[in-house]
Amino acid sequence: MRRVFSGFQPTGDLHIGNYLGAMVNYIALGEQLGQDAIYCIVDYHAPTNPAAYDKDLLAQRTFDAALVNMAAGLDPNKVILFVQSHVPEHTELAWVFSTQTPYGDLTRMTQFKDKAAKLESVPAGLLMYPVLMAADILLYKADTVPVGEDQLQHLELTREIARRWNQRYGETFPEPEAYLNPHAPRVPGIDGKAKMSKSVGNTIGLLEDEKSIWEKIRAMPDDPARIRLSDPGDPERSVVFKFLQYFAPPELVQVLKEEYRRRGIGTFVVKQLLMQEMMKTLRPIRERALELRAHPERVMGALEEGAAKARRIAQATMEEVREKFGLLHPKGRRLLQPLSP
Amino acid sequence: MRRVFSGFQPTGDLHIGNYLGAMVNYIALGEQLGQDAIYCIVDYHAPTNPAAYDKDLLAQRTFDAALVNMAAGLDPNKVILFVQSHVPEHTELAWVFSTQTPYGDLTRMTQFKDKAAKLESVPAGLLMYPVLMAADILLYKADTVPVGEDQLQHLELTREIARRWNQRYGETFPEPEAYLNPHAPRVPGIDGKAKMSKSVGNTIGLLEDEKSIWEKIRAMPDDPARIRLSDPGDPERSVVFKFLQYFAPPELVQVLKEEYRRRGIGTFVVKQLLMQEMMKTLRPIRERALELRAHPERVMGALEEGAAKARRIAQATMEEVREKFGLLHPKGRRLLQPLSP
Repeated sequence: MRRVFSGFQPTGDLHIGNYLGAMVNYIALGEQLGQDAIYCIVDYHAPTNPAAYDKDLLAQRTFDAALVNMAAGLDPNKVILFVQSHVPEHTELAWVFSTQTPYGDLTRMTQFKDKAAKLESVPAGLLMYPVLMAADILLYKADTVPVGEDQLQHLELTREIARRWNQRYGETFPEPEAYLNPHAPRVPGIDGKAKMSKSVGNTIGLLEDEKSIWEKIRAMPDDPARIRLSDPGDPERSVVFKFLQYFAPPELVQVLKEEYRRRGIGTFVVKQLLMQEMMKTLRPIRERALELRAHPERVMGALEEGAAKARRIAQATMEEVREKFGLLHPKGRRLLQPLSP
Repeated sequence: MRRVFSGFQPTGDLHIGNYLGAMVNYIALGEQLGQDAIYCIVDYHAPTNPAAYDKDLLAQRTFDAALVNMAAGLDPNKVILFVQSHVPEHTELAWVFSTQTPYGDLTRMTQFKDKAAKLESVPAGLLMYPVLMAADILLYKADTVPVGEDQLQHLELTREIARRWNQRYGETFPEPEAYLNPHAPRVPGIDGKAKMSKSVGNTIGLLEDEKSIWEKIRAMPDDPARIRLSDPGDPERSVVFKFLQYFAPPELVQVLKEEYRRRGIGTFVVKQLLMQEMMKTLRPIRERALELRAHPERVMGALEEGAAKARRIAQATMEEVREKFGLLHPKGRRLLQPLSP
C-alpha cells in the first residue's frame, strides 16, 4: 500500500456506523500514510443520481462532509482532503477515459442497471459514473482503494481502464487494489436487527445531541430471552453489549458481561455505562464540529489547501496523459523545430 | 448574430473545397465580429472515433489546422483561435451537461448510430460526443454556429441542453442557431462529378505545389459534348469554367465564356488562365504556410494567446454554472456566515 484514494459522499449526515465502519479507518490510514492518503468529496458524482441531488443543498452538504470528517479526527494538515469540483482535472481525465472505454462495458454495470431501472429519465452521467470514478483514482495513481462490496465491480472497471491505457500508451497507471478493512465492524442498527443505515432509520448520528442519543439507548432492546430483571442475560444476544464493545475498554466490557450473566447488574445500568463510554468518543467530535461550524473559514481554508495539494499531483498526471494521448502541448514541446513539409 | 462558435477538425490537410465552402466564410465572420468569432480546434473530439485518431499524429494535425487557417487569412489577433484541450472547462462543462442529458437522447443520435455500426468496439466517448459539442458552444454562450447539414441534429440537442438548463437553473445560455452560409459554393471535384472530398480523392490541396496543381487542371474534363477543338463549347457544362468562376474576376470569366462559345479559344488556354488566376489566391497562402512552418513559435504563440482569451470567457461561464449547479465555491462564498446547526 503506497497511496490510498477514497471518495466521500457529500453529506455531513453521518452516523456511528459510518464512523466505526469507515471513518476510523480513514483516520488511521491518514496517520500512517500522510499525504498519500487522498480523500475527495465527490460532489461531481452527486448529480448523476437525480433522486439524491438537490442543487440548493449540495454546497452545504459538501461543506458538512469536510467538517464532520475533520471533527471526527481527520487531520487535513496530514492527509489530502479536498472537493472534487475544485480540481478540474477529474472531469478532464474522465473525458479521456470515455474515449478509451467500450460503451457496452458501462451499460453492463450492475449499479447502472439497478439505478436506471428506478428512474424515469436516466441521465448520461449515470452511465459515465464509473468512468469518472476511474479518473478520480487514477489521477493520483493510487494503488489502494477502500471500497464496499457494492463498488467492487466499478473498481474492476478502473483496473481494466488502467490496464488498457498502459497497453496502448505505455506504463502510466497502477492497477489499484480494493482494500476491504478486516477490522471494520458491521455495526447493527439500534434495533439490533439490520445494519445501521440512514434509509432504515436505525442510526445514532455522529453529531446527535446527548438527550436524543440517550433516548435511543434507553429504548434499545435487551437480550430478547430476558423478560424479567431476575432472568439471567446473555450479553452475546444483547445489542447494548454489542455497542458497548465499540466504545468501552475491553476489561470493563468483560467485567460487565460477567455481572450481566450472573444477574448482578440490570440492563439500565449497562445502558448508562454505554452512554457514558459512547460520549467519551462522541462528545469531543460534537464539540469540534460546533467549533468548526462557528469558524467555517477553517474548513474552507483546509479545503483550499487540500485542493492545491491535490492539483499538484493531478496536473502532473494530466501533463503525462496529454502527452501520451497525443495532444498538442500548449508550449509546443517537440514542435519548435523545423517541420517536414 | 452576436457571437459565433465553430469547431475545426484537427487537420491541416485541407483542399480548395474547404477553403471556398467554409474557411473564406470564417475569415469574413472574423473580420466582422473580431473576438466574438471563436474558433476551436477540437482535438478532444478526435479520439471518439478510433478509426480517425492516431496518437502519433494528433499533435501535428492540431498544429497544422492552426497553421493552415492562419495562412489562409484567419487573423489570430482579431478572432479567438485556440485548441480545445488547452481549455479544461470544455470537459468540465461536458460532465455537468452529462448529468442533465437523458442517456436515451444520445443513443438516438443518427451520427452515433451510423458510426457505431461501423465499429467493433464503440467507445463511450462516441456516445458523449454531442454533449462535449454542446459544452464547446455554450461555454462561450455563442448564439450562432456555422454547421453542415450533418451537424444539425447535434445542434438541436445543444439547444435542448441549453433550454433544459435554463429551465432548471435559471436563464444562463442562449439557444444557438445554425448558420448555413447562403453564399458558400458547393465545390465540385476536379473530375467535375462529385463534391470535392478527400475520401473521393478529387481535390486540389490548399498547400499543394504548383506543378501538381497544373497536372490536375490539365487533366480536367472539358465540356463532354466538345470532341474536337473546332466544336462549339458550352462553358456551363465545363468544370474548368466552374473553377474559373471561383478565382477569376467576373468580367474576365464573361469574356472567356463568350470566346469559348464561339470557338475563339481552346480549352488549354482557359486552363492556363484558370491556373494563373487560382495561383493568385493559393500562392500567397502557400507562401505564408511555408513561412509559418519555418517559425512554428508564431503559431504556438497565437494558440497560447487564443487559449488565454478563450479561458477568460470559459472560466466566467463555469463560475456561473458551478454556482447555479449548487457546487461549493472554493472560496466558500455564502458559507462564511454562521451555519444553521
